[in-house]
Amino acid sequence: MNTTLDCIPCIVRQGLEAARFATNDAAVHEQILRELLQDAAVMDLALSPPAIAQQLHRRVRQLSGMADPYLEVKNRFNAMASGMLPVLAAEVSGSDAPLFRALRLAIAGNIIDLGVRGDISESEARSAIDNTLNEPFHGDMNMFRDALQGARSILYLADNAGEIVFDRLLIEQLPTDRVTVAVRGGAVVNDATRADAAVAGLCDLVEVIDNGSDAPGTILSDCSREFRKRFESADLVIAKGQGNYESLSGEDADIFFLFKVKCSVISAHVGLPVGTHVLQRQFSEAVTRD
Amino acid sequence: MNTTLDCIPCIVRQGLEAARFATNDAAVHEQILRELLQDAAVMDLALSPPAIAQQLHRRVRQLSGMADPYLEVKNRFNAMASGMLPVLAAEVSGSDAPLFRALRLAIAGNIIDLGVRGDISESEARSAIDNTLNEPFHGDMNMFRDALQGARSILYLADNAGEIVFDRLLIEQLPTDRVTVAVRGGAVVNDATRADAAVAGLCDLVEVIDNGSDAPGTILSDCSREFRKRFESADLVIAKGQGNYESLSGEDADIFFLFKVKCSVISAHVGLPVGTHVLQRQFSEAVTRD
Repeated sequence: MNTTLDCIPCIVRQGLEAARFATNDAAVHEQILRELLQDAAVMDLALSPPAIAQQLHRRVRQLSGMADPYLEVKNRFNAMASGMLPVLAAEVSGSDAPLFRALRLAIAGNIIDLGVRGDISESEARSAIDNTLNEPFHGDMNMFRDALQGARSILYLADNAGEIVFDRLLIEQLPTDRVTVAVRGGAVVNDATRADAAVAGLCDLVEVIDNGSDAPGTILSDCSREFRKRFESADLVIAKGQGNYESLSGEDADIFFLFKVKCSVISAHVGLPVGTHVLQRQFSEAVTRD
Repeated sequence: MNTTLDCIPCIVRQGLEAARFATNDAAVHEQILRELLQDAAVMDLALSPPAIAQQLHRRVRQLSGMADPYLEVKNRFNAMASGMLPVLAAEVSGSDAPLFRALRLAIAGNIIDLGVRGDISESEARSAIDNTLNEPFHGDMNMFRDALQGARSILYLADNAGEIVFDRLLIEQLPTDRVTVAVRGGAVVNDATRADAAVAGLCDLVEVIDNGSDAPGTILSDCSREFRKRFESADLVIAKGQGNYESLSGEDADIFFLFKVKCSVISAHVGLPVGTHVLQRQFSEAVTRD
């Protein structure tokens, strides 16, 4: 999807937050913000928000000299989520509808997205998880279940650190021998990389690959050739989070998007209120022709 | 006060909102936003937020060809507030502490500030008024009462349309023969001008002047000479709202600021939580010397 005018103030705010994550040097904060404003003034709105955020976060890393400004916060959210995992896993296995329960918890974990709101606290994340089933849900579980059964290969595109621990609950409900989890190829915001997949215990459970890109989403043209091959050959893609939705919505691919609607732009795009847990299928042209 | 880095994303958002108030032409929205980003990239942070907003709103009016983009919304909020006035006036006159009750209602009316949040709805404004006494309050009413008694001339700086109707409740509790109300000299955002003072019935109650400026605050160097004379000669100034606080905080003048803390920047500046109703006195050097 394109970037809208409403995304711009949010991107500017995000740039400032990223600068503060990267350094305590107020002069660098100001320099990053002014550069970002200059870039934004001539921004190509045909780019997706993750494409713009990718440039922004590269520049923040460059100016601050920090290779991974969000490392500490990623570790913190991973640890918090890991601490919650045993209780939640028991909830899922004791549930009448374990696939649905796990899916809802995985979507609730999508609250841990520092791209949309940099100030999300651990207590807010905890409360989102605790209130998972009270959030409105929009999606067709039967269609999801059927698609899983028919798929020989499932590519699961992870989103953020912390969140990826909750993804594990859902991945455990899938036919794991047919699942590959893909993470980002490089550090960007708090998006999950190989290290986070390892902390979540996914490397022992399924194949884990990276997409070769440092965009906070899945911009196919920016991903590695190997990843693109895997993406194209997968029977089914499960794409987690707003960043993956923003970058893959409209691509010719059979994708189940799983995300929480976290801003008014996405709300308008999907036609659902902010806060909604979404399971939305996008059909590839090939599937539509069937 | 200076503009902070945190003000910038907010100003960018405000510019986009102002553009949308002024015209339905999406090309103009984009042009205004891009210009604003360019200006913001080289912005002098020593200016106060109202000084920056003044430039922004001038440009919006110029590009859209609308002399007063917020006219309709100002009229709507004036009408809503006027409709609520009789009940609230009875509340004040029936109260054990009419001055305090009126002061709290006037501060609650400060919610009608489209500079801080352009999407404030009438129902939110109503709910703010209904919940007036549940909001935290910080201030010294005895000091305020004493200052009123000792003052031969009181200059009341109004803030927004709609809000000015609630100001009337407070102004009626003051020694009206010694009160002058000042409004903005030109249309800017939803700030109150002479027309709004008239709708609020203030012209029959007290002297009404304007400050000669189209800034959404009181930037003394930008105000008319006559206004500055009145400001300097007033025994006591009551300044309503964040815009007046942002532009007059730090000036060498004896001022009671009345406002609701509506953003994190002001919250940090006054050291009080967002939502607090504030009655804060600033002493002039002359008063401090006494």
